[in-house]
Formats: sequence, C-alpha cells, structure tokens
Amino acid sequence: MDEAALIAVDWGTTSARAALVDRDATTLRVREAPLGIQAVRDGRFGDALAALLGDWQSLPLPRLAAGMIGSRQGWVEAPYLDCPAAVDDLALRLARTPGGELAIVPGVTTRGADGLPDVMRGEETQLLGAAGADETMLAVLPGTHSKWAHVVARRIAGFTTFMTGELYAVLLAHSILGRLAQPADPATAQAAFARGVAQGLHDDGSLAHAAFGARSLALAAELAGPDVPEWLSGLLVGHEVRHARAWARARSLPFERVRVIGADALVSRYRTALAHAGVASEAGPADAAVRGLVHIARRAGWKL
Amino acid sequence: MDEAALIAVDWGTTSARAALVDRDATTLRVREAPLGIQAVRDGRFGDALAALLGDWQSLPLPRLAAGMIGSRQGWVEAPYLDCPAAVDDLALRLARTPGGELAIVPGVTTRGADGLPDVMRGEETQLLGAAGADETMLAVLPGTHSKWAHVVARRIAGFTTFMTGELYAVLLAHSILGRLAQPADPATAQAAFARGVAQGLHDDGSLAHAAFGARSLALAAELAGPDVPEWLSGLLVGHEVRHARAWARARSLPFERVRVIGADALVSRYRTALAHAGVASEAGPADAAVRGLVHIARRAGWKL
Repeated sequence: MDEAALIAVDWGTTSARAALVDRDATTLRVREAPLGIQAVRDGRFGDALAALLGDWQSLPLPRLAAGMIGSRQGWVEAPYLDCPAAVDDLALRLARTPGGELAIVPGVTTRGADGLPDVMRGEETQLLGAAGADETMLAVLPGTHSKWAHVVARRIAGFTTFMTGELYAVLLAHSILGRLAQPADPATAQAAFARGVAQGLHDDGSLAHAAFGARSLALAAELAGPDVPEWLSGLLVGHEVRHARAWARARSLPFERVRVIGADALVSRYRTALAHAGVASEAGPADAAVRGLVHIARRAGWKL
Repeated sequence: MDEAALIAVDWGTTSARAALVDRDATTLRVREAPLGIQAVRDGRFGDALAALLGDWQSLPLPRLAAGMIGSRQGWVEAPYLDCPAAVDDLALRLARTPGGELAIVPGVTTRGADGLPDVMRGEETQLLGAAGADETMLAVLPGTHSKWAHVVARRIAGFTTFMTGELYAVLLAHSILGRLAQPADPATAQAAFARGVAQGLHDDGSLAHAAFGARSLALAAELAGPDVPEWLSGLLVGHEVRHARAWARARSLPFERVRVIGADALVSRYRTALAHAGVASEAGPADAAVRGLVHIARRAGWKL
C-alpha cells in the first residue's frame, strides 16, 4: 500500500514536520522546516503551513496535527483532556483552524498525588503511536520536559513531567556549573555519565544540592572539566529515573520494563541509565507521532 | 573604643567591601565597590584594592580578607581546610598576596554522606562571626549557593550547599517558567510564596518535576502570572528547608532553631519558610563577616 491517505503534522515550539502517510501508517515522504510556533509572527500560521507543505498543499488529503500548534500560543487552542484519555476521547475533541486548514489533537492533563496539575501536548499522540492496541505500557519520552506515562489499551492512564532537559541546558549555559565545563572527551564521556547516573539513582538528597557536585567535584580534581557536562547529564537522568520509579510504585505499576520514545541519542542515554537501575528497556518506534496521528484519524472516522 | 585596628575586606565574585574596624569588632566606616574578582582584568588585584581602599591605603593597619579573592580565580589561592575547621585552624593557614598587601582566610571543605565534596569560601568567616564563643549553632546563609552549617564553639563541624538562588535566577531568566511570569503583585506575593513553601516542604518528589508546577499551575489558571516568581521562590526555599532538615537529622542535630545570616530580604524569606516548617529562627548579625575577620585576626596573634 503506498497511496497517500493523510498529511500528518508534528508541529512543535521550534520546528514543524509534515509526513505523507498511507493507510497502514507507513510514511511515504517527509518535509521539515524550522517553523515552530515560536518562529511564526503575527499569527501567520496559514503561511507557515503553506511553506511547510509546498506542493502538498493541493493534495486532496485530510490533515491532522499534534503539538504546540494547539496551545494558546499556537494557531487555535485545542482543549486539554483529563486522564484517563483514550485515543477515542482525543479523536472526538479535535480542534479545527478557522479556515479548515488543519485539525489539531487535544493535549492531556492530570493531577499528581502532590496536588500539582501536569500537562502534555504532542506527547499524547506519540504515546498512542508507540503503544499496541491491547498493550499495557510504561514509557518515557525524554526531552526538554521528559514525560513518563502509563498507557493501557491506548488510553493514557497517567503521566508525570520532569524538566530534565531544560535544567541541563540552563545550568550548563547560565550557571556556575558551565564555567568549569569543557568540550566532552569521548574517551571518558561514558564513564562520567555512568558516575552521574549512579549518583542520581542512589542519592536521595536534593537536586539543588547534588547539582553543585558538578562544581565541587571539579574543584576537588575528582572530575575533569570535559566530564562535567556528562556527569551532570547522568546525575539529572539518574535522578529522574529514581523519581519515576517512585511515581510508578505509588501507582502500583511494575517498574520492570520501560519503552523509551524519542531521538536516538537521548533514547540511548535513558536506556543506559535504566540498565544501571536494573530495568529492562526497549526503543519505541521512530515514527511514533505519525502512527499516533493515523490511529486518531481512524478513530475520528476519517476514511483512510 | 573607636580607634581603627584592622581593615576587614569581604571580597566576593561580584563586589568588594572594606571596613575600618576597631578592636571590639565595631565597624567605623565602610567602602564598597563593584570590583568583585570577575570584574578584575589581567590579575590587576593590587589596583582593585587601591581603588577600593582609597586613602585607607596609607593607614598602617593590618588587612585581612575573606571570600572568592582566595579562590583559584582570585589573587592568590588560599587552601580549603577540612571540617571540622576551627577559627584557630583558619588563623594558622592564612594565605598572603606576593606583595604582602593582604592576608586571606582559607575556605572550608567537607564530604557529604552522598559521597560528594562540598566547599565554601567566605561563608566560613561569616559563620564564625555569627556564632558565640561557646555556642552550638545551626545556621543558614541564604544566597546564590545557600549554605547550612553546624558550628560548635567556633568550629565548623559540617555544612551542605543548595544552589537555590542560582536555580531560581536561571529558571526565571532562561527557562520556560519565566515566560508566564509577570512583575510581582505585592497584594498576592506573600500568599503565593507561602503556597510555594508549603509545596516544597511537603512534596517529597523531584524538584525537576515540582518546578514544572510553576508552568502547569499557570496554564490551569491556578496561579496568576505575577505570582509565578513568588511561588517558585517559595517552592525552592521550602524544598531546601525540607532537605536541610533531613541533613540535620542524619547528623543527629536538633532542627529546632536556625540562625539566618544574610541580607534582610532573604533572611525574611527564609525565616518565613522556617516558621511554616514549625522551626524557630533568629537573624544573625548584619556584620557577621567583619566579626569573623576580627576573631580570625585575633587568633592569628595580630595585635588589635
């Protein structure tokens, strides 16, 4: 089957990606542009979409998008649906742009045991694309704001966010920890990352304390400058895995196997950290977003 | 007694402050300049000192400094002394600039139960200046890198660092959390800070998760934009107090009364958070650094 049936759009904060997809969710072609919602001025999302799609604009195909394009700062605000949120719930609540250019998948919200609300937008679609129809899945989507989620039969039962990627970036670029950092040394990077992971996994103290270790270890000549970023990355990921395990346990979820969904480099980092924690893992499909959009389009009753 | 006996210099990363002090540790006059070690180019510390002191340069008085001026990036590196470090230990290990312009107090180091080294430079002097001769003191010096310390009879028994001030600054200035923040509303600031403190004190999850609450609460319209910075400040301080309590307990230290040493606004924030935690507190002396320098000069055998 290789006839295009859907234009699937993954439209985030910094970039946008469109795929021509057939009815088996196979990606036929992809177009990508640095036209994330931050780059779109004066609400000219229609122009941005036209630039992204090029001559696909004229194809008589349905179009479905997920991601920050459905946020308050995006084209049109799609609602946040409460957990548990099933693929059918998302399919029933699609938002549509005023000119009918695009349907947009809702985000998902939940409230943690800590009383704090939590939100995702875009990840719900990747999660549904990475999960089997009848499967129970514990998954992580590493990134700026890592999401850990529990999905049962394509229903998002619950999730929790960690600002791991963003903390790493701002601490290295703007805090004292970056001052001692030097370009990574590939020869020692792995060991430094593993050391950081071990610290994060076993240390039950505050991250605000442990992160200072990147500086004090360097001052004490117990960590070389080029290893500072790797150690900090390991610390943050190990710390995240430790707290994700506590989150899973509080929900009586076994923390034995985790599906890691995302770009290769990050997936590999998280799988390494999970292995250090004695947890089995597997990489999710690279085209999780496209698969999720196809599931949602089908459940919306679109003829694919 | 009002005859000057010592020039006491508190020389940090961003500013330098010199005081003319009599032998009772009373400050007679103060001069301050934005000549922190970051602002001094090409190692011209002698010129910076001359600019700071002005006509005090010609006074025939001993000069003692504490702070980052004794770091590797400072004028001359003063050692780090291991905990427990007493006022006598510091007095015995003063560093001296090559031209004899200044004696510099050593820093202090320790190793936490988590295996990480920890360091302070400048705070050791404030701690000794804030503690009575025979007193047992649990103290916090809030700031970019908050220090909690246990001092017994002017001996620093142990301490631990939290990057609270720096995390607050980089998250507000450079992360997504700053985007929803607006100028503080004095009418609601106190309540927002208290809410954040309660979250930080009672939430045993990860800071990398809870900090995302500043965004999700705002998205859920449960926190107003002007209250985002106050809530985040409260969260970080509450989180710090919770972990400082765990640190004290692990050392079998009662966590019943804390001396808070620093600038008024921060002292007030921490005392509020401690009160929410049911812990008594008192403000340390505003001139703790000068007092500490006088104690150290005396123990070094200087004739004051």
